[in-house]
Amino acid sequence: MPRPVKFFYDLLSTHSRALYMFFEATKIPYDPIPVCATKGEHLTDEYRECVNRFQQVPSIIDDGFKLSNGVTILKYLIREKLIPEHWYPRDSQLRAKIDEYLEWQHDNSSKVCNAFVQEKWSLQNIEDERSSEQKVEEYRRQVEQNLNQLEREWLVPGRFIIGDRITIADILAACEIEQPKIVGMDPFQGRPKLAAWLEKVRFTMTPYYQEAHQDFYKFTEKAAAKN
Amino acid sequence: MPRPVKFFYDLLSTHSRALYMFFEATKIPYDPIPVCATKGEHLTDEYRECVNRFQQVPSIIDDGFKLSNGVTILKYLIREKLIPEHWYPRDSQLRAKIDEYLEWQHDNSSKVCNAFVQEKWSLQNIEDERSSEQKVEEYRRQVEQNLNQLEREWLVPGRFIIGDRITIADILAACEIEQPKIVGMDPFQGRPKLAAWLEKVRFTMTPYYQEAHQDFYKFTEKAAAKN
Repeated sequence: MPRPVKFFYDLLSTHSRALYMFFEATKIPYDPIPVCATKGEHLTDEYRECVNRFQQVPSIIDDGFKLSNGVTILKYLIREKLIPEHWYPRDSQLRAKIDEYLEWQHDNSSKVCNAFVQEKWSLQNIEDERSSEQKVEEYRRQVEQNLNQLEREWLVPGRFIIGDRITIADILAACEIEQPKIVGMDPFQGRPKLAAWLEKVRFTMTPYYQEAHQDFYKFTEKAAAKN
Repeated sequence: MPRPVKFFYDLLSTHSRALYMFFEATKIPYDPIPVCATKGEHLTDEYRECVNRFQQVPSIIDDGFKLSNGVTILKYLIREKLIPEHWYPRDSQLRAKIDEYLEWQHDNSSKVCNAFVQEKWSLQNIEDERSSEQKVEEYRRQVEQNLNQLEREWLVPGRFIIGDRITIADILAACEIEQPKIVGMDPFQGRPKLAAWLEKVRFTMTPYYQEAHQDFYKFTEKAAAKN
């Protein structure tokens, strides 16, 4: 029996939620080790030395091999474990389209989503003097543009992002797009294709989607009530 | 005989330079199609319809299959063509370490390098009122931090980024790190490991490195003379 993969995660992080769902859905034996990033539990010397030198969440240790970054870990697990083909098809063109989407997401929605959430969060909660309504509005505009591009360019009704079956692109995208809810923005409003696609991802990943997002939704509700 | 890959590129773009070197070094038959991005040649309707819907440079068309993004294209070519193993080894852990580096670069040096170059360029050349010396200095500080982290965490004297032979991580990193020269910053000053590693990459990629960077260096010299 292979030893379970040690999985260090915080379900408030997008990549952690995607990986949690992936571990659960694929039944890869794993040992879940929650790390509370908001309390800085990943910033200890012990974490740097024993888990990840860049102190990132999520990280894994697979039989002594340490690895970080959600996309990198997913692709590693796909090579190393017995995983259904549809998650990252061997067909070279399909694989290229998934990679192209993930790079697009990294360059576009991830970048502006993070900036928007951070900026608005700082303004609402820690009164950081470098934050401003003007910056928040600029980032919000960029997030809206990106979501519109996703709706227009990437989604075809009734399908997943790349093809007819769920892939790593869908779970990484869904977790990312949920993120602005932390600061009270509903990314799905006025975007029927995006909303229908999310329902399809959520349905396909039941009950793991709900489990992965349970704490996250509680957190977003608390944040919404506060403001 | 397979038809040559159509390669749309602008050697002022980091990923275009990396791909140019890769095509030349691996002898993949290709048809070079220069696109002048500073003149907006990638922003035409024709480019969007016939080459790339996101109007990106670099892009390829391989026997009718359209693909964009430098990292995605490199990995696609490695699957599709006869390429020496060392560029992206089949060994799963080495491959994971290359992916981890590339994601680190994307999240760190690429992000801040681009922001720094754009901000300083705007301040120097187009007097954009949203640019400011303060922002430039903030980005410069972040670039310096990233370069220090690269020097400290990723480089081992006498080696490439991952292992003893050159990989796609090295060419993508080298082209990225050269970029701040556009605004007069020398990334190698005071970083002996970084400078020695670049020399190793340059030597290994001679004469393609020089060919890929010829126009870029002329551009950086002109920009330096102007300021």
